Amino acid sequence: MITRLSTMFLRTLREDPADAEVPSHKLLVRAGYVRRAAPGVYTWLPLGLKVLRKVETVVREEMNAMGGQELSFPALLPREPYETTNRWNEYGAELFRLQDRRGVDMLLGPTHEEMFTSVVKDLYSSYKDFPVTLYQIQTKYRDEARPRAGVLRGREFIMKDSYSFDMSDAGLEESYQRHRAAYQRIFDRLGLEYVICAATSGAMGGSASEEFLAVSETGEDTFVRSTEGEYAANVEAVVTQPGVERPIEGQPDAVVHETPDSETIETLVNWANDAGVTVEGRAVMAADTLKCIVVKVTEAGAEPELTGVLVPGDREVDMKRLEASLEPATVELASEEDFAKSDFLVKGYVGPVGLAKNGVRVLADPRVVSGTSWITGADEKNRHVVGLVTGRDFTPDGFIEAAEVKEGDPAPEGLGTLTLARGIEIGHIFQLGRKYTEAFDVQILDENGKRAVPTMGSYGVGVSRLVAALAEQYHDEKGLNWPIEVAPFPVHVVIANKDEIAREAAEKLAADLDAAGIEVLIDDRPKVSPGVKFKDAELLGMPLAAILGRSFSDGVIELRQRGGETLEVPAAEIVERIIALVRN
Amino acid sequence: MITRLSTMFLRTLREDPADAEVPSHKLLVRAGYVRRAAPGVYTWLPLGLKVLRKVETVVREEMNAMGGQELSFPALLPREPYETTNRWNEYGAELFRLQDRRGVDMLLGPTHEEMFTSVVKDLYSSYKDFPVTLYQIQTKYRDEARPRAGVLRGREFIMKDSYSFDMSDAGLEESYQRHRAAYQRIFDRLGLEYVICAATSGAMGGSASEEFLAVSETGEDTFVRSTEGEYAANVEAVVTQPGVERPIEGQPDAVVHETPDSETIETLVNWANDAGVTVEGRAVMAADTLKCIVVKVTEAGAEPELTGVLVPGDREVDMKRLEASLEPATVELASEEDFAKSDFLVKGYVGPVGLAKNGVRVLADPRVVSGTSWITGADEKNRHVVGLVTGRDFTPDGFIEAAEVKEGDPAPEGLGTLTLARGIEIGHIFQLGRKYTEAFDVQILDENGKRAVPTMGSYGVGVSRLVAALAEQYHDEKGLNWPIEVAPFPVHVVIANKDEIAREAAEKLAADLDAAGIEVLIDDRPKVSPGVKFKDAELLGMPLAAILGRSFSDGVIELRQRGGETLEVPAAEIVERIIALVRN
Repeated sequence: MITRLSTMFLRTLREDPADAEVPSHKLLVRAGYVRRAAPGVYTWLPLGLKVLRKVETVVREEMNAMGGQELSFPALLPREPYETTNRWNEYGAELFRLQDRRGVDMLLGPTHEEMFTSVVKDLYSSYKDFPVTLYQIQTKYRDEARPRAGVLRGREFIMKDSYSFDMSDAGLEESYQRHRAAYQRIFDRLGLEYVICAATSGAMGGSASEEFLAVSETGEDTFVRSTEGEYAANVEAVVTQPGVERPIEGQPDAVVHETPDSETIETLVNWANDAGVTVEGRAVMAADTLKCIVVKVTEAGAEPELTGVLVPGDREVDMKRLEASLEPATVELASEEDFAKSDFLVKGYVGPVGLAKNGVRVLADPRVVSGTSWITGADEKNRHVVGLVTGRDFTPDGFIEAAEVKEGDPAPEGLGTLTLARGIEIGHIFQLGRKYTEAFDVQILDENGKRAVPTMGSYGVGVSRLVAALAEQYHDEKGLNWPIEVAPFPVHVVIANKDEIAREAAEKLAADLDAAGIEVLIDDRPKVSPGVKFKDAELLGMPLAAILGRSFSDGVIELRQRGGETLEVPAAEIVERIIALVRN
Repeated sequence: MITRLSTMFLRTLREDPADAEVPSHKLLVRAGYVRRAAPGVYTWLPLGLKVLRKVETVVREEMNAMGGQELSFPALLPREPYETTNRWNEYGAELFRLQDRRGVDMLLGPTHEEMFTSVVKDLYSSYKDFPVTLYQIQTKYRDEARPRAGVLRGREFIMKDSYSFDMSDAGLEESYQRHRAAYQRIFDRLGLEYVICAATSGAMGGSASEEFLAVSETGEDTFVRSTEGEYAANVEAVVTQPGVERPIEGQPDAVVHETPDSETIETLVNWANDAGVTVEGRAVMAADTLKCIVVKVTEAGAEPELTGVLVPGDREVDMKRLEASLEPATVELASEEDFAKSDFLVKGYVGPVGLAKNGVRVLADPRVVSGTSWITGADEKNRHVVGLVTGRDFTPDGFIEAAEVKEGDPAPEGLGTLTLARGIEIGHIFQLGRKYTEAFDVQILDENGKRAVPTMGSYGVGVSRLVAALAEQYHDEKGLNWPIEVAPFPVHVVIANKDEIAREAAEKLAADLDAAGIEVLIDDRPKVSPGVKFKDAELLGMPLAAILGRSFSDGVIELRQRGGETLEVPAAEIVERIIALVRN
């Protein structure tokens, strides 16, 4: 079927939408692919829907090829299964909850572990039924605090979620690897540049997980790669190399000093160097100080609890890393009010000793090991302590990954240093283990007739988000530039010559391509100038544009490869050339 | 791709589910096509999803062929547009409402007139853009008071909804007729027996509408057809032939009688005949009495209002017809309490005179025309009045379609009589007119540069319901029996012979059919008896089952046509025979 711009439901915009910041959002709206219906809730207009369906098809084909079986759960779900796993509460404000006409609690599914576990429990009872991989491509709902960038992070979105059930840990590992390979095929087919990163499991639970990040400056995730070796990880999952322990014996006693107006690391370091303090014979650096950040940690259903977080003074606390370390609990910085309420919290002078004395839990960066000596707050206004030794003067209640990761930090196993970049999370694979199957008491008879609990994996692809990720990687200042696998139309025929003969030739070209099974968009708008048509063709971003313009009078059709070179093709050869380009 | 019963995620059940009453519900659950997730909310298991997708494909192809453009709105919608049309309130308890994390009101879309009207307003401004037909195939939500029969009437369901926008009434008529024709092609391709019925427009508003009803005893809708001519209508839309007016002059005065214990029409007729009352010289019949039913009518946002409904005594009030007549107001019978509260409401003796005297609105059946004379309640215990003449002794405030339609009632235009049957609403087409475009103030420049408001049609197909309607029409006592266009697999190969050669031949048959582009389900379960396999094949309902059983040793494959004859086909010819049958 040939699609005509003269009748297509489309309006391109010359101006960026006011609420758009990232290129994919601007371009998908301007080119008439998507349209906002409510904050974080988007309509797929005809062109956008075509891209979305093509992405879906690639995902479905690869999921079927790896043995996945497709089914489709509702989005409107009962509360009970999510009560069983406590996610009804743990999800917090991100879960859309509602009541039906009888006052029964329901929710809009954010992810479906509970439902898949239940259906496997109900249908299967013998080890002979395993392994099994089930999936759906379905609309999901999460009431994001900050929906962002159009379909990149929406509150209603389309996800492929799959779940593997195996009788053994080795089976789970195999199912996990098959998903990993299928995801690579999916993202390779889509033409995305992506990185597979070690990741945290977050609220999902489970042991191992990896993320697929599409490389993009506008991504919300930061990841690291090592300059040597293959290490890649989301910064949230980067494991800090522990510090080197030192003997405590022989270290000088801690001494409290008057340190007026030294509430920042910078002023503290200046004070120390002015006061002639040295560390191993050299001047004091920020890394010799210990930053003590006070936060409030809230477990689901509990009161917020004060916690001290210790990091070396040359690093900030990375709230996303801290949050990831504490999930599913939520965390926020202590407020002015919290400081006002507790005498021992003296802003700029908080230290681990005062916190511990007052029963506040203290969690330390892994560099704060036994025998390390620090300059830090002395819990009184204008006072700091020098030579506070871990394991002698204070002992953290535990370690935590909270310090920012920096470009140039050592990579694990000594394989060079870390570089930082940003990416869009397009896939996430989890080895969940038995968290959900145990919660639902799934009992399967094993080969010996004994009851066993299957182990589970959970795997997601952000299908609608992939459209945005593709737009991020495939665009230029003029517009979109789709890879052929997902372009709404591989070919855009532009009538840019008023001659009736050109129009007829364009129609024949479109019909010939259509007959060859190639989808065609034809710009047959009668009163639109060639200049506007060219601009729209660049904005809409089909891989090939066949222009029947001025040079058509000389029997030449311009074949513009979006973002690439323009070929001058004799009219008689154009069909053949296009077919060859599309089929490669 | 060949699908194997040995690994397919499926369990067939021998028992009907406890909550199922109609065959499609029982069979779709027993055969593992769907599964309940919550009341009125269903999961599509692999087999069911395949049927659903095939139905969707037929709908999509025909919508594209008639010029429809597909897009996809969210299901989670903002309140404002539905406030503009007052449907936020009018929908009552049927609308799923929720609030997001900021307390903003949202809803789950029950139908999308508001959203489509808004998008057309935003994108289009000139008559040159019209006509346009837009559609989506999308998940809808209605919090039905009585979800029923599985996917036949669910609270989450899939609908194809389309909307036409035209600049003229003639254009709307054309768009409407093109939809009507497309719907006929859709339902013809699906192999459904259906009737196109005149219908009421209900809460949708607008002028004309027709329903497509799949003929089925289990349908919720009752429709009439005339014994001659082509008239068909939902009973809700049947227009009663008005009664014949008679001269009032010369009719005897109304007389009140003591009628002890005559609270039903039957006892009243008996009393009249015992008392020697006659009508035009003959004995009194039920049709000579006037039944006066008291109901409460509630407009959106208003208090319930008492209303009297008058129908001839030989007919019941059909609450569905009454409700349809009063939509979007809701209606219920007056309660014991309502009677207790009003002295003039004497149960069994209510009449139009007392109601009118007490300010209660009285609506009458169209047969209750001027000059008709009735025996009816006298508004006092044990008293009725004889000879109460319409237009002399009482005058209704209006007419209403509320009386039941009976088999044998005269058809319109004298074309025979009416017969009654039941059907499942699978499609509904509306000429909405300008109700929504005016509500949203859609202003389009016409050919003369003047502003004009486009006129609109709205058209729905119950896509998920079609799966149930098909199952209702295509099943027998043994199981489902899908038409080839929607069967999950056209062919089911059954290995029912323990010989290794039979197994190999079955695998080869499946591979050959797969290579010919025919989807195959193969029952390769190793330890399942032939008897169970045959039963499952009948329950699952593929159109063709190729059995490699006992007779395979003699080179014969049984080709069972589900619900039809069994052919004995030489093994060498089986592929060819199956291909021929599938392609026809």
